[in-house]
Amino acid sequence: MTGITTPRGFRAAATTAGIKPSGNPDMALVVNEGPERAAAAVFTRNRIVASPVKVTRRAIADGTLTAVVYNSGNANALNGSQGDADAAETQQLVAQALGMEPGGVAVCSTGLIGDPLPMDKVRAGVAALVGGLDAAGGAAAARAIMTTDTVAKEAHVEGDGWSVGAMGKGVGMMAPSLATMLVCVTTDASISSDALGLALRRATAATFDVLDIDGTTSTNDTVIALASGASGIAPDQEELDAAILQVCESLAVQMQADAEGVTKRVSITVEGADSDDEAREAARTIGRDTLFKCAMFGSDPNWGRVLAAVGMAPATMDPDNISVSFNGQPVCVASTGAPGAREVDLSGADIQVRVDLGTGGRGRATVRTTDLSHAYVEINSAYST
Amino acid sequence: MTGITTPRGFRAAATTAGIKPSGNPDMALVVNEGPERAAAAVFTRNRIVASPVKVTRRAIADGTLTAVVYNSGNANALNGSQGDADAAETQQLVAQALGMEPGGVAVCSTGLIGDPLPMDKVRAGVAALVGGLDAAGGAAAARAIMTTDTVAKEAHVEGDGWSVGAMGKGVGMMAPSLATMLVCVTTDASISSDALGLALRRATAATFDVLDIDGTTSTNDTVIALASGASGIAPDQEELDAAILQVCESLAVQMQADAEGVTKRVSITVEGADSDDEAREAARTIGRDTLFKCAMFGSDPNWGRVLAAVGMAPATMDPDNISVSFNGQPVCVASTGAPGAREVDLSGADIQVRVDLGTGGRGRATVRTTDLSHAYVEINSAYST
Repeated sequence: MTGITTPRGFRAAATTAGIKPSGNPDMALVVNEGPERAAAAVFTRNRIVASPVKVTRRAIADGTLTAVVYNSGNANALNGSQGDADAAETQQLVAQALGMEPGGVAVCSTGLIGDPLPMDKVRAGVAALVGGLDAAGGAAAARAIMTTDTVAKEAHVEGDGWSVGAMGKGVGMMAPSLATMLVCVTTDASISSDALGLALRRATAATFDVLDIDGTTSTNDTVIALASGASGIAPDQEELDAAILQVCESLAVQMQADAEGVTKRVSITVEGADSDDEAREAARTIGRDTLFKCAMFGSDPNWGRVLAAVGMAPATMDPDNISVSFNGQPVCVASTGAPGAREVDLSGADIQVRVDLGTGGRGRATVRTTDLSHAYVEINSAYST
Repeated sequence: MTGITTPRGFRAAATTAGIKPSGNPDMALVVNEGPERAAAAVFTRNRIVASPVKVTRRAIADGTLTAVVYNSGNANALNGSQGDADAAETQQLVAQALGMEPGGVAVCSTGLIGDPLPMDKVRAGVAALVGGLDAAGGAAAARAIMTTDTVAKEAHVEGDGWSVGAMGKGVGMMAPSLATMLVCVTTDASISSDALGLALRRATAATFDVLDIDGTTSTNDTVIALASGASGIAPDQEELDAAILQVCESLAVQMQADAEGVTKRVSITVEGADSDDEAREAARTIGRDTLFKCAMFGSDPNWGRVLAAVGMAPATMDPDNISVSFNGQPVCVASTGAPGAREVDLSGADIQVRVDLGTGGRGRATVRTTDLSHAYVEINSAYST
């Protein structure tokens, strides 16, 4: 697997600063060595945002970034003015060590909310990161941003003489408008920040935005794209869109597969809706329903829960003409149970749910989710303690 | 405990018709012997409703009811025209046996969605119920409507020469606009159906509507109130409101305590909101958050999850001025963690969460919920199989 340092013009580093009690790597740095520095980002839609999100929003306002510094094990969220000051100091430390202005450095944090960032560890960590920058450092960086992830997540797509690489983390607190996720996409294409931003927004809408593990949206979600121009090649928007979509799609699939406590990967497609937006909201409503998710964990084809959930969705539907299939087998046709519905085999790890809202409309969307398992409860009942 | 047959003018019966595989009682009948027959009802807001809900909506349109027939173990939902015919036949069977018009009989079903009602068992059940009507039959009826409930739920309030009784069932699939719940309230007060409906709507808004176990709303939720006038006493609206509120409050507390897999009873109060409605929506958003609920199960004072949840709520808030307390101890003040927040003791069965949205507004609401436990997952992963 190759990731963020596969495209030309990027170096990365990772270190163990001691922020995580586990002693696993917990800081990473990505540097765009140019010649260009176009950048774009998509942030959490939560109104309560962590201090690093505020710093990064300001840094990227001019459409350029040179570096992104990451820490895991501490979200630096809800730490008041001390949190803001710590995020700004982290940014300044990196800028100073790289001999540049602070405004070119983005800061991303992930981990527990509400504990002050241990700045003595961060200061030493930044020094180690800058000293360890390496053109093959991407894999180590991908490992260092993990929290409850069990595997590092990287992706890579080759264009015609240019490429796109990516890394990401995130396995819980995942809902529309990103998740508890941090993602970095790099490319050596020569492109404007506007073109990069357009491609990134299109890709996140089709991937991370429709990955909904537990309906929760975190305070830190940040997806950043950096373009170095080092290939000297300028792909058109369509080529760029396709390549960035592909790496984001790969990361989203990896995140779903590694979701906290997951035993089932569930894909919910809603069609026959008045619009794609309504189809997406209906699919989300089903994907967040805890009773539906528990049934999936139990391989239980209890399709009534799909209907009970979708009946509360903010979407136009014909209550007497809703149809549902599990893994291609009809279980409910025109709002009536189908023969054999209780015998559908859901024992496999992948489950496809298809729902037709019966309006005759052409709206259609797919949302990815997971089951709700004992392991999810176990992991999340003792996170901070 | 005394319930629906405590007020004068009511008889009830229960029987084991064989609808539940467990062999537990699964049908009940409540008859208002008058002299008056005022009635009111509140139904699920789910757009997909079970056949008995359709029948009962029509029956109560004139503001009167004489009888309510219940079955548990089968929701008679999503069974198409056969389901509608079965609900209508059940209504007719009861009316015929009681020597009255079908329009005076309401039908309520609860249980698995999507299996046809076994009408041979229902027919024999109706005959047994009508033969077994008893002025002390309330307790047996309350047991016969249980599904995954572990205890029967009854309530009773004495007025000045008149009284109110009630029974209810419901422990999961519980969300705003009722829950997977059936409730019957009886009174021997002499009152109009309009006064009864007003009291019932006020009471459900303050009790069942703010009980949110898992964010799911069922296809069958029905709360019915019947007034016999047998006391000859006509309380004013205020007295009636207070008494009906009290029995509904009692049933809601019993439902919360018996919720599927519950180990914690969690009360979430949101204040400092622009309006009571916004406060209620914010409290619901927190109460439905699976990560928050898992933390409560683990007695983990991970208050960051309260903030992450409320930041996505449809309510005006000051993101820099949100305060949270657990069991009266501040854990977050003005969006900053408070000293000692990680040491708050949440090991008891009752947890009070208080959130101030920091707008300076006077909007305020409380929602009751529960934790998300291993037992909830266990119960709900193997319901239909």
